Amino acid sequence: MTNAREAQATILSSVQTVGSVTLSLDRSIHRVLALDVVAGENIPAFDNSAMDGYAVRSEDIKTVPAVLKLTGEIAAGSVAQGALGAKEAMKIMTGAKIPAGGDVVIQQEWTETADDQHVRITTSAAAGHNIRPTGGDLHKGEIALPKHRQLRAQEIGVLASLGIGYVEVFRPLSVAILATGNEIVEVGAKLPEGKVRNSNAHTLSALVLEAGCEPHMLGIAQDNASDLKQKIMQGLLSDALITTGGVSVGKYDLVIDCMKELGVEVKFWKVNIKPGMPMMFGMYHGKPVFSLPGNPVSSMVTFLQFVAPALRKMMGLAEPSGGTRLPARIEHEVTKTDGKRHFVRGIFRQQNGSLTVRTTGSQISNVMSSLAKANCLIILPEEARKLSAGDLVEVELL
Amino acid sequence: MTNAREAQATILSSVQTVGSVTLSLDRSIHRVLALDVVAGENIPAFDNSAMDGYAVRSEDIKTVPAVLKLTGEIAAGSVAQGALGAKEAMKIMTGAKIPAGGDVVIQQEWTETADDQHVRITTSAAAGHNIRPTGGDLHKGEIALPKHRQLRAQEIGVLASLGIGYVEVFRPLSVAILATGNEIVEVGAKLPEGKVRNSNAHTLSALVLEAGCEPHMLGIAQDNASDLKQKIMQGLLSDALITTGGVSVGKYDLVIDCMKELGVEVKFWKVNIKPGMPMMFGMYHGKPVFSLPGNPVSSMVTFLQFVAPALRKMMGLAEPSGGTRLPARIEHEVTKTDGKRHFVRGIFRQQNGSLTVRTTGSQISNVMSSLAKANCLIILPEEARKLSAGDLVEVELL
Repeated sequence: MTNAREAQATILSSVQTVGSVTLSLDRSIHRVLALDVVAGENIPAFDNSAMDGYAVRSEDIKTVPAVLKLTGEIAAGSVAQGALGAKEAMKIMTGAKIPAGGDVVIQQEWTETADDQHVRITTSAAAGHNIRPTGGDLHKGEIALPKHRQLRAQEIGVLASLGIGYVEVFRPLSVAILATGNEIVEVGAKLPEGKVRNSNAHTLSALVLEAGCEPHMLGIAQDNASDLKQKIMQGLLSDALITTGGVSVGKYDLVIDCMKELGVEVKFWKVNIKPGMPMMFGMYHGKPVFSLPGNPVSSMVTFLQFVAPALRKMMGLAEPSGGTRLPARIEHEVTKTDGKRHFVRGIFRQQNGSLTVRTTGSQISNVMSSLAKANCLIILPEEARKLSAGDLVEVELL
Repeated sequence: MTNAREAQATILSSVQTVGSVTLSLDRSIHRVLALDVVAGENIPAFDNSAMDGYAVRSEDIKTVPAVLKLTGEIAAGSVAQGALGAKEAMKIMTGAKIPAGGDVVIQQEWTETADDQHVRITTSAAAGHNIRPTGGDLHKGEIALPKHRQLRAQEIGVLASLGIGYVEVFRPLSVAILATGNEIVEVGAKLPEGKVRNSNAHTLSALVLEAGCEPHMLGIAQDNASDLKQKIMQGLLSDALITTGGVSVGKYDLVIDCMKELGVEVKFWKVNIKPGMPMMFGMYHGKPVFSLPGNPVSSMVTFLQFVAPALRKMMGLAEPSGGTRLPARIEHEVTKTDGKRHFVRGIFRQQNGSLTVRTTGSQISNVMSSLAKANCLIILPEEARKLSAGDLVEVELL
């Protein structure tokens, strides 16, 4: 049986990034850069004032108070008429370009009005004071944002400031989702005796959306080779295929056999974890195929641990391996004896500057409502046996 | 000057949730429930098997080995023909309904084939073993998910399992964004001398999207009352209006005056924070209006601290006050003397089970690229003066 780390490594070494697409800035949030973005200009493009005040020459204010002649006024966005001469000052607004000859801005608070045409500087300052230098944020020619960087609001701000309205990013992935099993009926349908609703496909669809990909729902395949193969073939047209259900040892479990017959190369189909042990990963002409267990919690946990990293690598992220992980002290004793890696639904909180976590209680893998109560997964490694209250564990935020 | 806590409290007490809308499950990710969702049925709807194995009567396996007659086979989704009699067993698959008379499932591994028509149970178990009871996840009539709960993948799974395909959620908010200032030009335009590009509106648009709202870009208003008022009026048609630029003390700063003349009730317009001090909050017929500073970093920080909580309350979240905050040890000395609350761009990391953070360096508020390097804001409270390496600080994840 594969362990969790090997499984993740196998998956990440099997998948590759997809191609790129040009998107307008306002559609590019959470996409990933497919090229280095080089600054085509300096930011700021010119020396400018960090304050409202007076642009002066530092040599004129070595001794204060100094009375200087007012020769102009520079609003943000406008440019001084001519240069600043000796013993002269220009009123200047925040963001406005420093006039030629000026090398310091004295803030309003350090000045007094002398008369209509003169200002009195009461406090001295060295050259450069209150001046934001050309290229102080970004220099022309430097890499402003590297390839593989995901675009958050601040990256979009950087691109806009460089005048970049269109950006080359890895294209969105289409991810097919197929529920399997004679026992499954659609959400809106009447529920016959013995059947259950198709909840996994909807959970997976939401997880695919949260990962920044486009879910493509294939419906429900019955437990027969003909229906399964037809729907699996359809799913193999997408960039990745996820099936749910039908990979345990039951005799009605045909999914893996159908996959193999269609040419999917099975890489592993059991992982030493709980929940989620019966999980298949394969490749089909460069596309990953995942068969996740039918239990709702197992399905979500295996998505987060194995499918999401694959999708993140394919969509271009440099560090695809997982969600935010944090150390926390467990609030109560936990024992396990099976040598598996456990992903335990937990409630994580901050108390007096330290992080603690407790389990949500029952960890039965069909109890989806406990995942709705959880805000993290507690990760208990294979070798852990008994944890006492106060022991350090790793949690992954949900 | 208002302090940060008072400012946030004023904002949160001024805004109200918007109305609700019915959305299909697959469009409801990250929306917030506008009604309690009551379970209309039990989950699971029937006692079912947690394992592949044999459904038997516990009284028949008090002593083992016990040889029982095979009287049927129950696949997931199908129902047993008749009840289970004394000394009888039925083969059963994971998820299949327990036959009448059966009260325990013995997993495959604890059984042997006796002959074609009999199975030998080798290990005993008590009633209920391997049975997932009716209502074990959710009981009919209980509140499955409360009003004000945000829908993540797991909540969508719970709704689907209950057969709920449409859900009543608070409607998406429309948020208008207006850049102001003669110095601003659009991203795609040529950059004349002394001008800067409109980056803030794009950053804010991305932040509005990340908050789950719909940005509505109003373009750039020039620094004159007529243009400002016309565009502000347009923005007041949205659920909330954000302007950027034009609220410092410069003589060209008309934004607040125009707001007042249009009937915006100004609640405060300076907050004791850095960056972001000159920030206005007002209300217009129940709609919040924010005028954020023009510096890119100030604009983003004030959005996260003040605008985002307002939007989160309006979109229905029960705890709108902020992003994920964590304790961390600062890696180096930090001093401040101004009595303001600082939001310092930081790089947060996990080392040997503890969380540490360092600043990104220069904290000049026009340096957007430093926010692109940051993964958190370090929050330094008003009263903090000198922090030594190893001191505990609070960070907010970006």
